[in-house]
Amino acid sequence: MNIAIVGSGALVLYYGARLQYAGDQLHFLLRRDYQAITANGLQVYSIHGDFELPQVNGYRLAEEIGSVDLVIVGLKTFANQQYEPLITPLLGADTKILTLQNGLGNEEQLAALFGAERILGGVAFLCSNRGEPGVVHHLGAGRIIMGEYQPHDFPALETLAARFRQAGIECQATPDLKRARWEKLVWNIPFNGLCALLQQSVDMLLAQPACRELVRELMLEVIGAANAQGLSRPIAEEFAQEMLDFTDAMGGYRPSMQIDREEGRQLELDAIFSTPLAYGRQQGAAMPRVAMLSALLRQVV
Amino acid sequence: MNIAIVGSGALVLYYGARLQYAGDQLHFLLRRDYQAITANGLQVYSIHGDFELPQVNGYRLAEEIGSVDLVIVGLKTFANQQYEPLITPLLGADTKILTLQNGLGNEEQLAALFGAERILGGVAFLCSNRGEPGVVHHLGAGRIIMGEYQPHDFPALETLAARFRQAGIECQATPDLKRARWEKLVWNIPFNGLCALLQQSVDMLLAQPACRELVRELMLEVIGAANAQGLSRPIAEEFAQEMLDFTDAMGGYRPSMQIDREEGRQLELDAIFSTPLAYGRQQGAAMPRVAMLSALLRQVV
Repeated sequence: MNIAIVGSGALVLYYGARLQYAGDQLHFLLRRDYQAITANGLQVYSIHGDFELPQVNGYRLAEEIGSVDLVIVGLKTFANQQYEPLITPLLGADTKILTLQNGLGNEEQLAALFGAERILGGVAFLCSNRGEPGVVHHLGAGRIIMGEYQPHDFPALETLAARFRQAGIECQATPDLKRARWEKLVWNIPFNGLCALLQQSVDMLLAQPACRELVRELMLEVIGAANAQGLSRPIAEEFAQEMLDFTDAMGGYRPSMQIDREEGRQLELDAIFSTPLAYGRQQGAAMPRVAMLSALLRQVV
Repeated sequence: MNIAIVGSGALVLYYGARLQYAGDQLHFLLRRDYQAITANGLQVYSIHGDFELPQVNGYRLAEEIGSVDLVIVGLKTFANQQYEPLITPLLGADTKILTLQNGLGNEEQLAALFGAERILGGVAFLCSNRGEPGVVHHLGAGRIIMGEYQPHDFPALETLAARFRQAGIECQATPDLKRARWEKLVWNIPFNGLCALLQQSVDMLLAQPACRELVRELMLEVIGAANAQGLSRPIAEEFAQEMLDFTDAMGGYRPSMQIDREEGRQLELDAIFSTPLAYGRQQGAAMPRVAMLSALLRQVV
């Protein structure tokens, strides 16, 4: 399969590297790491075993790639206004677009630009960081749950998920992408938000009972708003405990929003906070603590 | 009147200086500023006109002062375990104790140690900062609302309030000290809390609509919990707007808790957060945003 990777965060570099390592034709649209990756390839340090791709196709312009079978989008969501110039040159009649971006609203924006039928969304539970240019660290987890924005061909989706699994990526097709997106928010909202605000890693939050309780309360607010969205089946409150247990195993992990703040980059506040808050309000599901966290984050950036 | 000042924050230094300037016999129990104040007196820079007290009675030990008519307590609340050694030597049979400390719980602790009848509480709305040792800056406001912990002699209270007014201190006697304490919390909880957490002055908070709204929501939670405490008359929701207007006039004021955090001192979290939260819970008045702010502050100190 011919696959283009748009965005060069650790997450899509990692998944792209896995797919190439398994035999797909990968094309990476790059900026900062263009020189390093085209010259020296990609080095992946993974909990599942390190591997190296000595030869990687890197590009500065989407036009140099041309049309592919699958576009995997990993842009920071505040760069979504770049969708059109970056993705249009990659599209043929049957090209699928899979966004692995954070938060809510990405599939909607892609569908408006490129048509709803080709849009897939994936929710990734991956702990990864970039090292020096050309180096990716896979620190934990890695599962993707993918779904169609407008469900119409589940078998094709399952074929794609199987392809990911062949590449060593834990991957699962879901008929309810919206539910998967909200499930991810149950983690993203408290941990990205609090770690970025307090500049503390996940283990520091969970070590203090009052803060651990606050994480749980934020999760329960998100679960409440999720279940007001008309999901195929509700997210159980016990999911909050699962996410706490999942996070306890991460050690001193710093979520992407914390790293973005520490490195002076823009934060993904619209996708992770404002859009979910708006969707919650539309369904009458108040999230007072989430709204407070959002206001506090807007106040410090 | 013979008056002892216990604690050497800007607030009690300012009020003590006013009382001495008006002719009372003041005795200041000091630590850090002992040398400077006993050697050079107190210099007050006030919006109502600067004045100087070239000769000030400073002491290192309460025993050197002996019994007085009135003890004014301005300790940081986390030093309340010092009440007994610092105050006991100052007490005669008729000595009153007026605590101008922040938050809730101070009168209760003083009453348990020294008897409820002599305990007065005062809520001060004063913008002040300490300068170098021996220098106090009075930046704005200054009103005290004082009440008896156990109401039994309102005329005596009014006489004391009149004495403060003669000294140029706006002062008012209230039959409902609890209400005055909670009114002050309507300001203290959002501004001390958010300014300390975000390390931003009050004008920075109020300049952003989302944060201004958060301040108002925190105020409304405090008003709700206050009105569950059986006050003589409820605090109106409009009081939140009055406090916002009052604060708009303060410019770049930094509340004491922000300064405490910036200077690496302990924060008054029990008196300003934990005790009000507990009193709220006892009456079934949830304060989710206040509890969240408290948890966040505990997480950063």
